Amino acid sequence: MDHKRRLQNLRESFSSRKLDAMLVSHSPNVRYLCGFTGSAGALVVDENGAAFFTDGRYGDQARNQVQGARIRIARKSPLLAAAEWLADQAKRHGGKHLRRLGYEADHLSVAERDRLAAALPSWFRLKPTSGTVEALRMIKDNDELSLIRAAVKLGASLFESALQTIRAGVKEMEVAAQMEFCARRKGAEAMSFETIIASGPRSAQPHGRASDHAIPGDGFVVCDFGVILTGYCSDQTRTLFVGQPSAEMRRGYEAVREAQQAALNAAGPGVAVGEVDAAARKLLRQNGLAKYFTHSTGHGVGLEIHEAPRVATGQTEVLRPGMVITIEPGIYVPGQWGVRIEDMIVINDRGCEVLTPTTKELLTI
Amino acid sequence: MDHKRRLQNLRESFSSRKLDAMLVSHSPNVRYLCGFTGSAGALVVDENGAAFFTDGRYGDQARNQVQGARIRIARKSPLLAAAEWLADQAKRHGGKHLRRLGYEADHLSVAERDRLAAALPSWFRLKPTSGTVEALRMIKDNDELSLIRAAVKLGASLFESALQTIRAGVKEMEVAAQMEFCARRKGAEAMSFETIIASGPRSAQPHGRASDHAIPGDGFVVCDFGVILTGYCSDQTRTLFVGQPSAEMRRGYEAVREAQQAALNAAGPGVAVGEVDAAARKLLRQNGLAKYFTHSTGHGVGLEIHEAPRVATGQTEVLRPGMVITIEPGIYVPGQWGVRIEDMIVINDRGCEVLTPTTKELLTI
Repeated sequence: MDHKRRLQNLRESFSSRKLDAMLVSHSPNVRYLCGFTGSAGALVVDENGAAFFTDGRYGDQARNQVQGARIRIARKSPLLAAAEWLADQAKRHGGKHLRRLGYEADHLSVAERDRLAAALPSWFRLKPTSGTVEALRMIKDNDELSLIRAAVKLGASLFESALQTIRAGVKEMEVAAQMEFCARRKGAEAMSFETIIASGPRSAQPHGRASDHAIPGDGFVVCDFGVILTGYCSDQTRTLFVGQPSAEMRRGYEAVREAQQAALNAAGPGVAVGEVDAAARKLLRQNGLAKYFTHSTGHGVGLEIHEAPRVATGQTEVLRPGMVITIEPGIYVPGQWGVRIEDMIVINDRGCEVLTPTTKELLTI
Repeated sequence: MDHKRRLQNLRESFSSRKLDAMLVSHSPNVRYLCGFTGSAGALVVDENGAAFFTDGRYGDQARNQVQGARIRIARKSPLLAAAEWLADQAKRHGGKHLRRLGYEADHLSVAERDRLAAALPSWFRLKPTSGTVEALRMIKDNDELSLIRAAVKLGASLFESALQTIRAGVKEMEVAAQMEFCARRKGAEAMSFETIIASGPRSAQPHGRASDHAIPGDGFVVCDFGVILTGYCSDQTRTLFVGQPSAEMRRGYEAVREAQQAALNAAGPGVAVGEVDAAARKLLRQNGLAKYFTHSTGHGVGLEIHEAPRVATGQTEVLRPGMVITIEPGIYVPGQWGVRIEDMIVINDRGCEVLTPTTKELLTI
C-alpha cells in the first residue's frame, strides 16, 4: 500500500481548504492514510510529515502496521495526546505554523471537539472539514482494487452456500448462519453488514435481515450479503424463487434485471451518478413499476460498506476510473413480494467492469 | 418492557439539568427509551410526552415497536425532522416552553449539531448533556435482567463448541467460526464483539482476535466471546491449555482465578467500583504479578458491550442493585503467555450473583 502517496494527496488539499494541518480520527480514514487497523488511533498530518497516536494496548500493532507517520504511544486518549503534541510542536518551533487545524466534523462528537479545543492553546483555529479523506478514498488505487476483487470473490462464493440451504421450511436465520460460517472459514474478518434473507412477503422489506421466519413454499427470497476481507467490504444481492413464480412476478424480476443492466450500461467515466440512477428508474417506469423502487440505485464501497458517492436521484458527482459502486435497483410490492439485484462494479477508462461473478438468471428451487 | 417508566425517569432528571426537553439520537438510548431497534431514529422527550422520528424505510417497524411516543415518519433525516417539529410546536403553542433543549454531546457529531442548530429558531438553547440516558441504563430493570440472563446462557453454551474444536494445529479462526455458527443457529443476532481466540504467545495480547495462526501444541488459549440476543450483550472469557502447563503457568492461572474471586467477593451494593478493581489487583500484587495486569477489571454490559460503569483504578461510581458488570482480571507476560478469566455479574441486595455458569477450573486439552 502506498500510504506515502495517500498522505501526500491529503496534503495537496490543504491550500484550497486553507489548512496548515489536519487531525484525522475516523478509523477507516486513519487506516487508509497510514495502515493502522485498530480502533483507537489519531493521525496529525502537516506539510512536512505525519504523527500517529495510540494507546499502550496497540503499541505492537502500531509498530507493525503504521507507515508514513511517526508513532507515539500515549497514556491518554489518542485525541488528547495529539492535542498536546500539537501544542508542544508549536511552542518548540517558536511559531504558529500549525495554527489552522482541520478536524473531521462528521465524525468528531461535540464532546470530543470541546475536549480537543480545551487541550490546545487558544490561538489554534479548529476548522471543521467534511469529506476530505473520503474524497480521496472514492478513487481506489490498484492495491485497493486487488483487495476489493478478493473480497467480492469470497463474498460471491457464499451464494453457493445459500443455494444449498434455501428450501421451504428452513428458517431464514439458518441460511444466514450457513453463509456466515462459510465466510469465516474462508478467512473473512466479519460480514460487512447484517445478512438479509427476506423470504415470501418479507421480500417486500428492503432491509429484511434474516429472521426466525421459515421460508415459505412459494415466494421470492432476497439474499443481500457481504464480507469484510483485509479491511475491504463486498456487497451483493441475488433474488431467487422457491416454487413457481406467477407471470406477474416473473415480469417483475425481469424488469429489475433489465433496470440493473440499463444502469450498468449507463455507468462510465464522465457520467454523473444521478444519470446512472435515472437509467434504472426509466426502465422501471416503462414497465409501470417505478413507484415500487423506493431507494437509491447504489453507493460507493471500500473500507466502509457505505461510502461516497451516493448513486441517487439528482446527485451530481461524476464517475471517474477507480470508483467502486454498487448497482442495486429493486421493487417492493407492499405486503406481497420484492426483488433486488445488486452487483459491485469498478469504473474504468471505457465504462465499467462488473466485479460480481454470480448469474442473474432467475433461479428457482 | 416498561418504556413509559423509563421515559418518566428521564423526565425526572430535567429539572436538575435545567432542561425543558431532550433530543435523544444514540441508537441504544433510543431503543432503551421507546423500543425502536432500527438505526435511523430520533426521540424528543418533553415534560408532557415524547415524539419519535424515523424515515420511510422504518415505518412498519416503528409502528410495531415504538411505545410511549407518537410516531412521525419523515422524508428527511430523523434529526432534522425532529428539529422542524420542535420549531412548529413552539410556534403553535405560542411560547418557548421547549427552549432549553438537551442533546447528547458524546454521540452527536459537530456537523449534526450544526445542522440541528441551523434548523431551529435562534432562541432555542441547545444544551450539551453527557451520560443522561446512560445513567438510567446502568440500573437494569427486571425485563432487562431476563434478557441478559438469556444472552449470557446462550453465550456460555458456545464454550462447548470451543472445547470441541480447539486442538493443536487448528486455526484460531476455525474455532471462532464454529462458535459463531453455533451462536447464529441458536438465534443470536450477532456476536457482541470480534471473537478473541488467542493461542500460544498470542495469549499475551489482551485483544488477540481470532487469526489464521494455528493453535500450537503447547500453550494457553484465551477465548473471549459474547453474543447479542434480543439486543442484549453477553461477554465472557475462559482460558484453557493445550498440552501440559509448566508450574509457573499453572501458578499464573491460579493467581488470576483467585484475583477474579477476590473481585467477586468485593462486589456488592454500596461498594465503589475502584475498590473492586483494587481487590483483584491486590491479590495479583501478593503473587508478584500485578505488573502484568495491564487493563481495568471490568465494565458495565447491557444494550452495549461496553457501558457504564468502568470498573477501574480510582473510579468512584458506587455499585447498586441491578448493575450488571464484568469481572475480568488477566495477566500478560509479553511475548510469552497470558491468562484472563471473565464473568458477568449482577449486583443484588446482599452482594452479587455470578451470571456466567462456566467452570473456572483450568481445563487442559
